[in-house]
Amino acid sequence: MIKKEKLNETGLIKEIERLSLETQKFNKSLVIESIGDDCAIIEDKNRMLVSSDSITENIHFNFDLYDFYEIGEKSLLVNLSDIAAMGGIPRLLVLSLFIPAHVNEDNIRQTLRGIIDTAKKYRVSLIGGNISKSSEFSISATIIGDYKDENVIKRFSSKTGEQVYVSGELGNSWMAFYLNDNKNYIFKNYPNLKSEDKKLIENLIDKYKLPQPRINLGRKLSEKKLANSLTDISDGLVKDIFNVIGNGCGCEIYIDEIPINEELKYICMILNIRDYIDKAVSFGEDYELLWTAEEYKEKELLKLSKTAGVKIKKIGHITDKPGCVNFLKGGALYFPKDFTFKHL
Amino acid sequence: MIKKEKLNETGLIKEIERLSLETQKFNKSLVIESIGDDCAIIEDKNRMLVSSDSITENIHFNFDLYDFYEIGEKSLLVNLSDIAAMGGIPRLLVLSLFIPAHVNEDNIRQTLRGIIDTAKKYRVSLIGGNISKSSEFSISATIIGDYKDENVIKRFSSKTGEQVYVSGELGNSWMAFYLNDNKNYIFKNYPNLKSEDKKLIENLIDKYKLPQPRINLGRKLSEKKLANSLTDISDGLVKDIFNVIGNGCGCEIYIDEIPINEELKYICMILNIRDYIDKAVSFGEDYELLWTAEEYKEKELLKLSKTAGVKIKKIGHITDKPGCVNFLKGGALYFPKDFTFKHL
Repeated sequence: MIKKEKLNETGLIKEIERLSLETQKFNKSLVIESIGDDCAIIEDKNRMLVSSDSITENIHFNFDLYDFYEIGEKSLLVNLSDIAAMGGIPRLLVLSLFIPAHVNEDNIRQTLRGIIDTAKKYRVSLIGGNISKSSEFSISATIIGDYKDENVIKRFSSKTGEQVYVSGELGNSWMAFYLNDNKNYIFKNYPNLKSEDKKLIENLIDKYKLPQPRINLGRKLSEKKLANSLTDISDGLVKDIFNVIGNGCGCEIYIDEIPINEELKYICMILNIRDYIDKAVSFGEDYELLWTAEEYKEKELLKLSKTAGVKIKKIGHITDKPGCVNFLKGGALYFPKDFTFKHL
Repeated sequence: MIKKEKLNETGLIKEIERLSLETQKFNKSLVIESIGDDCAIIEDKNRMLVSSDSITENIHFNFDLYDFYEIGEKSLLVNLSDIAAMGGIPRLLVLSLFIPAHVNEDNIRQTLRGIIDTAKKYRVSLIGGNISKSSEFSISATIIGDYKDENVIKRFSSKTGEQVYVSGELGNSWMAFYLNDNKNYIFKNYPNLKSEDKKLIENLIDKYKLPQPRINLGRKLSEKKLANSLTDISDGLVKDIFNVIGNGCGCEIYIDEIPINEELKYICMILNIRDYIDKAVSFGEDYELLWTAEEYKEKELLKLSKTAGVKIKKIGHITDKPGCVNFLKGGALYFPKDFTFKHL
């Protein structure tokens, strides 16, 4: 289903077709026909999940933070997170590439390598797509996933009294973006910065500039029925929390329980950044999972945290106050400053 | 599955969600959950067809030829043609909109109206998508279709001796684009042009600037088993013919049998354009169906042409000369000048 008509790059099309072969083994029973005809043909006995997302140059990425390989990775990671946020299994990928004149064939090849390596890591098969000329570099991906039995976990379905959980740590993406944007300024204006600190800053940027979709955790939450309402945090906790709250419910979040990276705290101390907690709950882009479960499931969640190797933290509970989301710090109401992610 | 994070246009997202309701009735048994969660949930007992295509401002359309409503229409029509080209039934739509600053909310609303009206016309349900800022206007659509029984019709599967058929007329899209690009010049430099001729030129642009996906014809060809190898003509007959030819086969095309619009011939006569046949077979963008069938099916195809209200024309036959595509005019070899559609 790869289209030739939009770019006279027959070689590139052939390359994508060839690369897609590396991903064909993962979902053999689902893919009847892959790239090569007007459409791909698929077959899935289970219910399917369909999600799409796009990333665009100078909006969602710039070439200062990411190389082309990483742009390819990112285009898939943000999409995979949506499958994780339903407790599903990612299966198939359809790509739309928008290629400007300033992106050469070698750049595209690196981008495709990033996409294909990520697809392989998550066992996703590339079944088709299209290439189009454009004036800026964009990648749009549609991912088809599925799930077994009836274990899909929706949004908006928590009940009063349930606990609110989050995976991993919040604020790491903010930190990577912030440090990258301000690295030169910091290195220049903090002359007492130790060389280990400089190295740490470089490492933190590298480690957290790309999100990690919680596919495995999402599946486990679904299989073990450990979440009643689930989403991923792309816009920041202060916004995404509204997506797990069920009808007629509200929520209280304990701000001191928000999981924050120790190295983030250390760097913020050095740089005298005091409002990192506000940034951690409002910047977004962390793509951690956010869900609710009954209190008695806590033990099993802690066990899952160990076996899955992912931090799980209780950060609040669902109340019976419709639409009320309150952040609490030391028992008092707390109002996070909204540092919403304004795209680059 | 509509994402909010990419554009702070909550109103627009709500609008898309509301508009999608207009299309929900068409595929009720397939759509378990539509817009509103991290993913849409679908279920299809049949095998599915998946196709994606994109259109971009100044590459595939400009605001001189199309208004925003028509851009919306076009984004869906080119995708629907891929489903027609497999003999399938279009079912579900996932949209990615790239919205630049020079496109305002009213423009987007018109575009969405064009998309939704086209979706309704072809009974397609909008199940999700995403919005992203960008510096140019682009629409990427993924369409999921299906088909009944085993009646999908692939490319590359014709056999020696089969006839080659085409639907409708070729060259109409070239004519619409050409006349639109040169209208002012023509009206100025052909002072003897009658007012009826001017009106005809305007009408032809209007009538043929958007393709008509042959969904109904594709389905009938599939149901009645009247095609062995099928594709749509997006790049021009001279290129797309290679997509119907089976392994070890070649093809002869009778250039005098190519179906050409009578008004196109008339306008070309007035404007002294003599090579319109070359343009008709090489410009592309007509999105007519191109297929092969055994000779004895001709009668049934002619009957289908009448009941379906679509012209069907025999334009050649499949030979046993591997990879040889010959165009014949009055028995002699003919070499069409390649006026490949160079995007705007």
